[in-house]
This record gives sequence, C-alpha cells and structure tokens, in this order.
Amino acid sequence: MATVNENYFNLQGSFLFANIARKVEEFQKAHPDADIIRLGIGDVTLPLVPAVIDALHKAVDEMGNAETFRGYGPEQGYEFLRKAVVEKDYAPLGITIALDEVFISDGAKSDVGNIQELFAEDNIVAITDPVYPVYLDSNVMGGRTGKAIDGIFEKVVYLPTTAENNFSPDFPKERVDIVYLCCPNNPTGTVLSRARLKEWVDWCKQNDAILMFDSAYEAFISSEDTVHSIYEIEGAREVAIEFRSFSKTAGFTGTRCAYTIVPKEVTARTKDGERKQLNPMWNRRQCTKFNGVPYIIQRAAEAVYTEDGYKQTRENIAYYKENARIIREGLESIGLTVFGGVDAPYIWLKAPAGMTSWDLFDLLLEKVHIVSTPGSGFGPSGEGYLRLTAFGSRENTLRAIERIKTLSFK
Amino acid sequence: MATVNENYFNLQGSFLFANIARKVEEFQKAHPDADIIRLGIGDVTLPLVPAVIDALHKAVDEMGNAETFRGYGPEQGYEFLRKAVVEKDYAPLGITIALDEVFISDGAKSDVGNIQELFAEDNIVAITDPVYPVYLDSNVMGGRTGKAIDGIFEKVVYLPTTAENNFSPDFPKERVDIVYLCCPNNPTGTVLSRARLKEWVDWCKQNDAILMFDSAYEAFISSEDTVHSIYEIEGAREVAIEFRSFSKTAGFTGTRCAYTIVPKEVTARTKDGERKQLNPMWNRRQCTKFNGVPYIIQRAAEAVYTEDGYKQTRENIAYYKENARIIREGLESIGLTVFGGVDAPYIWLKAPAGMTSWDLFDLLLEKVHIVSTPGSGFGPSGEGYLRLTAFGSRENTLRAIERIKTLSFK
Repeated sequence: MATVNENYFNLQGSFLFANIARKVEEFQKAHPDADIIRLGIGDVTLPLVPAVIDALHKAVDEMGNAETFRGYGPEQGYEFLRKAVVEKDYAPLGITIALDEVFISDGAKSDVGNIQELFAEDNIVAITDPVYPVYLDSNVMGGRTGKAIDGIFEKVVYLPTTAENNFSPDFPKERVDIVYLCCPNNPTGTVLSRARLKEWVDWCKQNDAILMFDSAYEAFISSEDTVHSIYEIEGAREVAIEFRSFSKTAGFTGTRCAYTIVPKEVTARTKDGERKQLNPMWNRRQCTKFNGVPYIIQRAAEAVYTEDGYKQTRENIAYYKENARIIREGLESIGLTVFGGVDAPYIWLKAPAGMTSWDLFDLLLEKVHIVSTPGSGFGPSGEGYLRLTAFGSRENTLRAIERIKTLSFK
Repeated sequence: MATVNENYFNLQGSFLFANIARKVEEFQKAHPDADIIRLGIGDVTLPLVPAVIDALHKAVDEMGNAETFRGYGPEQGYEFLRKAVVEKDYAPLGITIALDEVFISDGAKSDVGNIQELFAEDNIVAITDPVYPVYLDSNVMGGRTGKAIDGIFEKVVYLPTTAENNFSPDFPKERVDIVYLCCPNNPTGTVLSRARLKEWVDWCKQNDAILMFDSAYEAFISSEDTVHSIYEIEGAREVAIEFRSFSKTAGFTGTRCAYTIVPKEVTARTKDGERKQLNPMWNRRQCTKFNGVPYIIQRAAEAVYTEDGYKQTRENIAYYKENARIIREGLESIGLTVFGGVDAPYIWLKAPAGMTSWDLFDLLLEKVHIVSTPGSGFGPSGEGYLRLTAFGSRENTLRAIERIKTLSFK
C-alpha cells in the first residue's frame, strides 16, 4: 500500500498571489474603465538584449546541423559557461572558484528548493521573516518543520527583519543548523552590511551551521557596504553555498538559467561526527536527478558575459533602478517611509500608522488603481509593509507615483 | 550542527560509463590508429529537424521584442504545449487527459528522480533488473533502501527480466508499494504485451501500489501487441503515472523537454488510511521547486506536433530503427542471440556461452574496435548481456556489423 509524504499536508496554501488576483479581478469588474497599473509583479518586462538574442540564434543553428549538434551535455553545465562564471563573476572580486564548484541549473528556485535534500531531516532551519517562500516550503516538504500554528511553523526559527532592527536580523538564540539569507533581500529590498555578513559567517562557523546565501539580485547593488558574493567574506568557503541567477541580471525569468556555488570546503557531519563535503553530494544529486540546461540557453547565458552583453544587460538594470529611484523618492516626497530600492528592484513601503498590509493594498487599488503586494504575505513580520516593484515601464512607474501623490495619509 | 542525509552514502559509485571510458582510452592509447566505432552511447546524433529549428528561431525573436517577450511562465508548462500533448499524443489513442494532468518539465530524468518525494520513506520499491539507474538511485537518496550488499540493495524488490522469462518479469511475491516499469525498455529494448500490462495494472490495484510507467522510447514502437500509453489499459488512471520525453522522440537530449501525466484518480494513503490525490501534490512540488521550461523550448516541443514536425521527426526515428534492424539481423545472421531492437533503439545481445558482459565488451573493443555497454552495468540480471544502440550513423552501423561478422564465437 503506497503511502504519501504527509509533510506536504503541513504546507500552507499559497493564497497571496491568488488573493491579489481575485481582488484585482473583482475591482476591474466593478470598474471596467479603471486603468490599473501593476507594481506588484516580481517579473522582468524588458526583452532579452541583442547580444543574447544573437547567441540564441547562433546556437539554434548549431542544433540544426549534424556537425555542430549537441546531445546530452554535462549535468553540471558546459565548461564554457562555468568558465565565464568563474572568470567574470568571481575573479574580479578576488575570489577563486574552481570549475567543479560551479553547478549550472535551470533556476535558483530549483537549487534553493532542492539543496535541503542533502541534509538530515532533523536539521533546524532559520529563515528571515519576511522571506521568499521557497526556503520554508521546501523544508516543510522535507520534514524539517512541524505543523503551522497561526501561520508559524513549529521547529523553524524565524528571524524578524524589520525597520526596528534596521533589516539586520539578530542571531538565533536557539540551536540552528541551516540559515537562509537573501541579500539583496526579497521582499524588503535591503542589504546586509559587510561587517554584519562577516559576523554571520563567523556565527555559522562557531555553530557548525550552513549558510544558504541567495544573491539573485546581486546585479542591482549600488551600495559599497555590502558584498556581491558571500565569498568576499573570509571563512565563507567553509560554510556558505551561494545561489545566483540570470533571471534578474539578464531578464532570464522565462529563459531559465542560474548557478550555484558549492565550495569544496563546505562540510556537514554524519551522526557519528564524520565531516562530509557537500560538493560531491550536490554533484551526485544533480547527476542523478537533473540532465543539465539546454545547450542553447547556456550559450545565451554565456553571451551575458561578453562586452556587448554586459553593457546591454546593465542598461536594462539601470532602467529598473531608475524606476526604483522614482518610486522611492516619490513616496518619500509625500512623507511616506520606504526602505530598499537602492540595491534591489524592490521598495518596501511602511504602511502609515494603524494600517495593515491589506488595508494599504486595498486603498491603493481602490483609490488610485495600483496593484502592490501586501508584506504580510511574506511572513508575519511583513505585516504593516507593502512591496512595490521597479519592473514596470518608465511611463507606468511615473504615472503610478503621480497618482499616489494625490492621496492623503493623514 | 548541520548533519547530512546519510542515505547518499549508500549510493553505489556509477562506475559503468567511467570504466568504459577508461578502457576505450587505454585501448586508443595502445592502438593510436584504431578506428573505433561507438555503439555504446545512448544519445541521439541527428540534428533537430527543420520544423523545430524554425520554431526556435521564431520564439527567440519573440523574446527579443518587448511586445512578445515572456517572463515567468506557468510552472506546469504553457497551455499551448499541454494542449498539443493532450490532443496529439492521447486523443488519437482514445485517451482523455485533462490539461491539469499534464506537467511539462526539463526532462524525464528530473521527473522520474523527483516523483519519489511524494511518498513516505517506508514505501517498498520494486524495479526490474536490469534497469535505468535513476529509479533506484533516487530512492536510495530518499531513504527507501538499506545498504547495498554485493551490489544488491536491502529492502528493494528486484524483478529479474531476462530471456528466461521472455523479458516479462514475474509479479513480486513480497509487499511492494511502488513499481517502476520502463516500456519499451532501456536497456533490453523489449516491450511488455498489452495483456501483461493489464495484469500489472490489476496487480497494482489489488495491492494499492503505484505504477511508475516510463515510456520515453514510445516513438520507437512497431509491435501491435503493446501500448503507446499505459492509459490504454483499463484502470490505469487509478494507479499509473506516465513519463514521456521529447529526448528520443525528437532528438531533444540537449534541448531538454519532457512531460509527466498524473491523473486525478491516482491516490496513495496517509498512515491513517485517508486517500490523497497525487496530482495536487505533484503540482505543489513543481510550483515550489521548479519554475517551468524555457518558453523557446516549449515552442520547439510544440513544433514536434505540427504536420512538418511530425513527419520530420518520424523520418529520424525511421533512420535509427533501420540501424537497429541492421544490427539485429546482422548479429542473428552469424548465429548470435539478440533481443529488442524492434520497438526501441536498443539491441540486447546475449553473450555466447561462458562469456561475461565484460568479456564480450573486451572482445568487441580489442578485436573489432567497437564500443558497447556491458549489461551487468544495469543490474545483476544484466550479466551475460551487452547493449548496442542504434543512434550511430548508418555508415558506422554497417561497418560495425561487417566487422563483427568477421569474428568467430565458436
């Protein structure tokens, strides 16, 4: 008699975006002429850059020719792309990453979701709160949590990350074995300082914990006082796994390519205390349950590292960052309190006193026809905040801010 | 203190292809002029067909244009592709599959590897022997096996599949909760009859077991007395999950697209005996840990279903099938015993009496410079067999058989 993995039934419904969609649909039905602007969506809108398009066409032609056709590629990714990652993303930061520490994949979501498989079920996981839901949900499925009581999972250590602590969470007071940090952060748009990240690496070393470092938004960083890679921090190679993506760097959300770095020094223990490298374990996981990224997609990702590709993708990021500035400064100009938006495409708006996330969401939708994302959807400490994103068009971003400026929050 | 999933250390090294590569390399070094022909490789060699190439170019252009650019797509795959699957792969067989029972993915390997996550750790797994290694290895990682003793895993039920039982395994005598069947089979190239598959579906129903039906080689079927889909069998919707791939159907091994069917009737039980549908569980798994297949790749897969795409991909399959016929009949003409090769690109050669798989591998390499795959590498019951594949060029296939005909096996 086949029996199910009952941990799945501990998962909370992911009602956030469904609820938003329902509210927007109802509003649109009641107000068919309303010109709704969407600043809730976390997806890019600018097309792939010309250098990437050229590389795709060229690779497609290779696939149509017997001489240059490619069948199964290496599960870890082609060497040409792993080399580009090592030489263009890490060497300029003074970081040495070996080719066999780079694992090309179809998305940071896949890697962040699958990495927990390498760990025993009784590891204790810490997540910042609010947080990208995959860190938590993949561990719920993996049996590392209890049930959710009022939306809070047993066994999981939540690290509140709010204006009160300047979006820099305190260290856990209880035992923690695996910590997820997202920097620049989704949804708050904030970064952790270099000094604080050094303390996190040291904390992980002292506690023999693994640091899962998600830097999917690295390309948006402007601040000097943070890191582009966790491996800029001394000692990180012993404790940290880094997740990077072409999704936001190069508009690959529908093109699908990312990579994960698993340094050979990162280890965890067996129950008998023996240290085991995670690098060969992840390699075995990928070789067994994954067959690599399409050849043509890997050539597209490689093109992001060319002179033209870099220039073109950075122009797109500058465009989104200018949107972020417009939103941030526009909201500040009317006395609202905002965070993020400097090192990330996300602006984290504090709801005026007495308003919940959903109150503010409803107000923006009903009064000025703007769709946002309620912060409470990202975790209990997101209550009282709203996420706005910089991925819209310039025109809509400007119009949205002009509309919000007509509101009174007194 | 982070601790590892120790099940990983129960995995056996996958030495098969590494051993083959080493032997071939050593031989090549000792005989630099030897013209080696590779009939061991399980990868396609013909390029993508023109209809697919055209669809790829068109989709790439869409991605370069703001009006037609696609960001995140549905995790389950675009409706245009799921519709094509339902209407072109299933409707002609008289099978009704709902759109939300189709899950597009980056590969059958991923789906076959990940599906075990839906089940509790104490399910008992049965695999045919010899077998594609992913069924076993993914369950080793998931903790459903004990340790391997002389290459045989505790707790796993092995179903010998050899000439002695006409490659139709007996039903398990012990408790089994999940059965993996691959039909047409890799590595034996054989199929199960329609009547036997009906018995398997009935057996699964009687035993409340799940049937994982891998039909990655379906496009190669010529025989009348087997099925193109397990859902041709009455009752299969209640017990079977079907895995299909564009890898061998359309030469997508380096292009990466596949799909899995999870009918809504398929259920497994909680420990309390409550039946749970697997369809919403797999949907949740994919939505949490996967972000869909690249848009351009889904358009490429869609093109396989067009009139031109179908015609062109079937020509390639006919080419490989003719290679298979040449190998099969060539070997039979010198008195060798062969199986498969009619409904699959694989020919399963019985080693002459007294020879092991590796003996015959060595003989072919050393005497006629042909690379094959020893059957013993696919499981204990593969001992005494050799897998040859039809994916080479016509010229090399013909030359290989002429060479083998010069050998004497008396």
